[in-house]
Amino acid sequence: MPGSTLGELFCVTNFGESHGPAVGCVIDGCPPGMALAEADIQVELDRRRPGTSRHVTQRQEPDQVEILSGVYEGKTTGTPIALLIRNQDARSKDYSNIAETFRPGHADYTYWHKFGIRDPRGGGRSSARLTAPTVAAGAVAKKWLAERYGVRVRGYMSQLGDIQIPFEDWDAVHTNPFYAAGNSRVAELEAYMDQLRRDGDSVGARIEVVAENVPVGLGEPVYGRLDADIAYAMMGLNAVKAVEIGAGFHSVEQRGTEHGDELAPEGFLSNNAGGILGGISTGQPITVSLGIKPTSSIRSPRRSIDKLGAPTVVETHGRHDPCVGIRATPIAEALLALVLADHALRHRAQCADVSVETPRLGLARG
Amino acid sequence: MPGSTLGELFCVTNFGESHGPAVGCVIDGCPPGMALAEADIQVELDRRRPGTSRHVTQRQEPDQVEILSGVYEGKTTGTPIALLIRNQDARSKDYSNIAETFRPGHADYTYWHKFGIRDPRGGGRSSARLTAPTVAAGAVAKKWLAERYGVRVRGYMSQLGDIQIPFEDWDAVHTNPFYAAGNSRVAELEAYMDQLRRDGDSVGARIEVVAENVPVGLGEPVYGRLDADIAYAMMGLNAVKAVEIGAGFHSVEQRGTEHGDELAPEGFLSNNAGGILGGISTGQPITVSLGIKPTSSIRSPRRSIDKLGAPTVVETHGRHDPCVGIRATPIAEALLALVLADHALRHRAQCADVSVETPRLGLARG
Amino acid sequence: MPGSTLGELFCVTNFGESHGPAVGCVIDGCPPGMALAEADIQVELDRRRPGTSRHVTQRQEPDQVEILSGVYEGKTTGTPIALLIRNQDARSKDYSNIAETFRPGHADYTYWHKFGIRDPRGGGRSSARLTAPTVAAGAVAKKWLAERYGVRVRGYMSQLGDIQIPFEDWDAVHTNPFYAAGNSRVAELEAYMDQLRRDGDSVGARIEVVAENVPVGLGEPVYGRLDADIAYAMMGLNAVKAVEIGAGFHSVEQRGTEHGDELAPEGFLSNNAGGILGGISTGQPITVSLGIKPTSSIRSPRRSIDKLGAPTVVETHGRHDPCVGIRATPIAEALLALVLADHALRHRAQCADVSVETPRLGLARG
Amino acid sequence: MPGSTLGELFCVTNFGESHGPAVGCVIDGCPPGMALAEADIQVELDRRRPGTSRHVTQRQEPDQVEILSGVYEGKTTGTPIALLIRNQDARSKDYSNIAETFRPGHADYTYWHKFGIRDPRGGGRSSARLTAPTVAAGAVAKKWLAERYGVRVRGYMSQLGDIQIPFEDWDAVHTNPFYAAGNSRVAELEAYMDQLRRDGDSVGARIEVVAENVPVGLGEPVYGRLDADIAYAMMGLNAVKAVEIGAGFHSVEQRGTEHGDELAPEGFLSNNAGGILGGISTGQPITVSLGIKPTSSIRSPRRSIDKLGAPTVVETHGRHDPCVGIRATPIAEALLALVLADHALRHRAQCADVSVETPRLGLARG
Repeated sequence: MPGSTLGELFCVTNFGESHGPAVGCVIDGCPPGMALAEADIQVELDRRRPGTSRHVTQRQEPDQVEILSGVYEGKTTGTPIALLIRNQDARSKDYSNIAETFRPGHADYTYWHKFGIRDPRGGGRSSARLTAPTVAAGAVAKKWLAERYGVRVRGYMSQLGDIQIPFEDWDAVHTNPFYAAGNSRVAELEAYMDQLRRDGDSVGARIEVVAENVPVGLGEPVYGRLDADIAYAMMGLNAVKAVEIGAGFHSVEQRGTEHGDELAPEGFLSNNAGGILGGISTGQPITVSLGIKPTSSIRSPRRSIDKLGAPTVVETHGRHDPCVGIRATPIAEALLALVLADHALRHRAQCADVSVETPRLGLARG
Repeated sequence: MPGSTLGELFCVTNFGESHGPAVGCVIDGCPPGMALAEADIQVELDRRRPGTSRHVTQRQEPDQVEILSGVYEGKTTGTPIALLIRNQDARSKDYSNIAETFRPGHADYTYWHKFGIRDPRGGGRSSARLTAPTVAAGAVAKKWLAERYGVRVRGYMSQLGDIQIPFEDWDAVHTNPFYAAGNSRVAELEAYMDQLRRDGDSVGARIEVVAENVPVGLGEPVYGRLDADIAYAMMGLNAVKAVEIGAGFHSVEQRGTEHGDELAPEGFLSNNAGGILGGISTGQPITVSLGIKPTSSIRSPRRSIDKLGAPTVVETHGRHDPCVGIRATPIAEALLALVLADHALRHRAQCADVSVETPRLGLARG
Repeated sequence: MPGSTLGELFCVTNFGESHGPAVGCVIDGCPPGMALAEADIQVELDRRRPGTSRHVTQRQEPDQVEILSGVYEGKTTGTPIALLIRNQDARSKDYSNIAETFRPGHADYTYWHKFGIRDPRGGGRSSARLTAPTVAAGAVAKKWLAERYGVRVRGYMSQLGDIQIPFEDWDAVHTNPFYAAGNSRVAELEAYMDQLRRDGDSVGARIEVVAENVPVGLGEPVYGRLDADIAYAMMGLNAVKAVEIGAGFHSVEQRGTEHGDELAPEGFLSNNAGGILGGISTGQPITVSLGIKPTSSIRSPRRSIDKLGAPTVVETHGRHDPCVGIRATPIAEALLALVLADHALRHRAQCADVSVETPRLGLARG
Repeated sequence: MPGSTLGELFCVTNFGESHGPAVGCVIDGCPPGMALAEADIQVELDRRRPGTSRHVTQRQEPDQVEILSGVYEGKTTGTPIALLIRNQDARSKDYSNIAETFRPGHADYTYWHKFGIRDPRGGGRSSARLTAPTVAAGAVAKKWLAERYGVRVRGYMSQLGDIQIPFEDWDAVHTNPFYAAGNSRVAELEAYMDQLRRDGDSVGARIEVVAENVPVGLGEPVYGRLDADIAYAMMGLNAVKAVEIGAGFHSVEQRGTEHGDELAPEGFLSNNAGGILGGISTGQPITVSLGIKPTSSIRSPRRSIDKLGAPTVVETHGRHDPCVGIRATPIAEALLALVLADHALRHRAQCADVSVETPRLGLARG
């Protein structure tokens, strides 16, 4: 596949550009018979939507989704579900300046060399706007996983720049503009972001995503592993530069006696594995951590070259997220849900007839 | 695909079990007309081979590769290259104990639940032995990349447990059993490993991999990104729990003015991107860092359950690497080469006719 | 892939239902830099469009295509090209009768058993309406093949029921409603169709498709053969029950001395191969022949069962093509173009560096 | 995928050349827990094996299969099953003459132009020898389909040159060297073949394949149809030039009132559909018919060119089947089994939870 499709059986083909007529996707492989309405998808799109606080891009997009196919009388039919989101606040400003130079840290340079042509309007296809269809598709995957297996996928921001944001409470995530799982640092985060905007600069962030009640057995032994596909999906999210599962880089300093999660009849006694062993889900929570780089489109002047190689200075004005990490939480959740739905289908294709007497363990509590 | 194939156009299908008759792979898509002999592959297999120092598993396997197809009169024909490696030191010991319980941190539990059957001999398909075919295939990819584009892929160990191993010199990598890029810490590493074996324990490691002279333009904008595929390949390597590209998690604390690599006529002025922007290669070195967990098969007793869910204690004897990270360097190199070869073919399929006047930049030196 | 995508590198993902909001597709992998406008696509859609003569369905659909992405300033950008065609003449009639029974020869029965739910409105996804996106995508493939390689793909109807329609002249194809390559039988065809409608019956047809100036070397040796992919695409067209390449079933009675196309310096001396040897294009014209069954939706009463298995009689009223073969010619052309474009990209991925001194032969004329 | 893999979930990757060290395949996706031994595969390989009568090639190959992986204690483990067949009767004759010219009707010319290199020994990868791994993999698919669903796949030769061979009795197929389903014409066939060999010529054949007890619901609506995949597999078999399903080309002359198979509570009343409607299996027998061209390697002199384009005359000596159709029956059966196994897995991935009250119909008898 040329590269715009995620998944093998529950699969999503993404299309669109930031300032073209529309963005959207086609979901192929969603099982039939599931209740699905635009409202089920809209709720997730609204979480990702721009313009919802002063800390994110001020572009005004309702991100209204239209289901074009695959649903009949409110239920999925097992045929492709096409989702359409029209771009509305696409400004007709002059992009000729951006089109002639390459923003440091931006895809301008690579698109130009790869394709010999690029749509400079709002970053074209490299824009984070293309995560809207991912979130829409993820909403469908989340719903199916929840109804079929009771899976719950949630995320939060754990770090903004050098500010650590401790996990306090899942319920807090929806009560602040940062997806912080606790409000103790929110004032500090707000002040930090306000200063950042005044500086014309941007900053990175760290996001945690967790999937609970995942069936045991998802993933393949060699190459097609669940952890591999999670890393693929997450590293493919705009601006992500690092991915950890379970203990992640902390594993480097661990001893085997410390890292390997012991088992007892009541469950696994720890979760350094992050819910995946040998590339296959264990039934414990799957825990993923992402490192996101600072936005490359900033007001501060930076050295660059133009299309003929001559030196120039670039300052990017316009509407940009000063921390792309802020809106990344619902996207990372969507990606995790899509990978899990895909592997759930792959697993039952091959192993639908398997049954063992061994009890399935979760993570032991307490 | 069920999960044993890596790549879309330069692709490798892996087969085998640790103590079955053989391991091997089929490489499909290698361009025709390249000189290829078994010796080209053997040299990389010998780097990964067990039994080469006292710090790795003492299993004695010559890992002799046989080319079964795809080569005629010393040149690749463009048809599938099948590679066969017979297992020779597969001990006929009694695995019934291992077969009835689940080692903490090991894939025993997940394979059992997924498939309802598992080959317990040496870990079956979950064994690191299955990286031998990956290394063999990677040798072919490395050769093609080197001859066609001048790409060079190299790696080294940068941390063992809590011992940081600074980069000093590429030439040192082949002079010590740890793939350390410098010998200043080798005595310390040897002592550390000797103590670890005495303790019946294991430890994690960090590996760096670098690809130089990569063409600009490899990778796709959304989903099929080069960084995504690298993360996929690396996280799919046994025991890997974390992957970084470029500045990785360090990006979280960076400002945009610090992270975005400026461009000048003589090249990029830094490489926080790790050679990839917007999912597409920039032509700078691609830099990847892996976090590897400690081996799960250790002598120390650990709590577990048996196949019926009853509590038990597991001690694993036999021949195991006390640090799987030690032999991971050539494997990580092979994976990076395979991903690059695949994307090189994908790129030229779509973009063979593209040409731009803009000069291609490397990383500015000095 | 779940089944709605055609092609591996020049690939098309199809969505929609006959009476849903829209049909459409996403083309991923089209090379960048090609001029493309909606008019380029519309011209092919207009050839397939319903309601253009009294011999086809009277549904009135303008089949107006909108390009949603992948084109910037009139040129393809190398990113996915999404095409949208709104359904306009979707009647709000009562489908509850159709929904409860299964038309003989129709997909009603199989969709119901497969999915447990089906959209009965106009056949839902089983409708020939879903060939509109195929034709739209094929228009893009045709344009690229023509501009890049000079390939020309054309077709005509060679048989309607038991009326043979001899090939006389390519130019005649556009001058009659049957895609007959000659007008000598058109009056007979008109009379035949008029009687058929009066009978409330339907009939089959045979279509020929030819691609000229195809580069030599497209296709893979085993499994991924060009002839295999052509057969796949053609047999996947609604109502097709038979596919031939070159001499087709006539080969059964041929001797080797008769069938094998001899070569001379001026070209191949015949074309029993239909332009493909060993699964790979020879450079001669690729010739394909399709057998299409009669439409299953007819006015005549037929025995069937209802959803609970009880016997019933079905008569299908509404707007249907009495010979689906009549509109099949532009669709078959589109499919052949899509397969060729896909293999052209696949070929250059692996074999871009191949060159031989041997002259490339066409079909010798005279 | 580069082209040597068949199937998406039950998938087979083929490797080897006619006179290289070995041919073989890797089956990935076979469900775990099925009893499997080499003897299960050998029985099918022996049906296809050369040298079994005077009417086929006299090459002596035991075609002994070795299972290299994926089976533990006599049961499939769900991991890749690699099958190896060593070439033994690969003659060390001089191929330099064949290497310099192109046999009419043979893949010599296309391989040369595609790859710029070709293995001329016995046709290299274009040899029908590469169907041995297909037959081996098909044996595994057949066994799984039979045990899991009771599917039975059988075939026979229905025409040799201009001799029609009427179906009389399935049991006769194994009692004559032609796979004729009846012995009334066997003497005539023997005489025909003896004369053909004396003439130094070859001839085509027609093969029928039938799958019974196929579950209803296999196949996807658009593009990924079951009939499309069957056509793909069959047209990809060496020398096949035509494929029909059900009434095939006969459908062209049928009226809708004649073609559409009526349904009654006791079953479908006919099977013009050949067991597939709308691309999805109906539960009736799947019936496929293949047209196979005459062998291109014949003793009679034929006009051709050499590698520099100069005219020459080619006579092919050596061991060749004078009718490749004779050994095609077990191969076509294998291909049909592989396609059905693949679609069975694909179907249950998406539709495992579907259930309807409607009774499933077979073909009504008598």
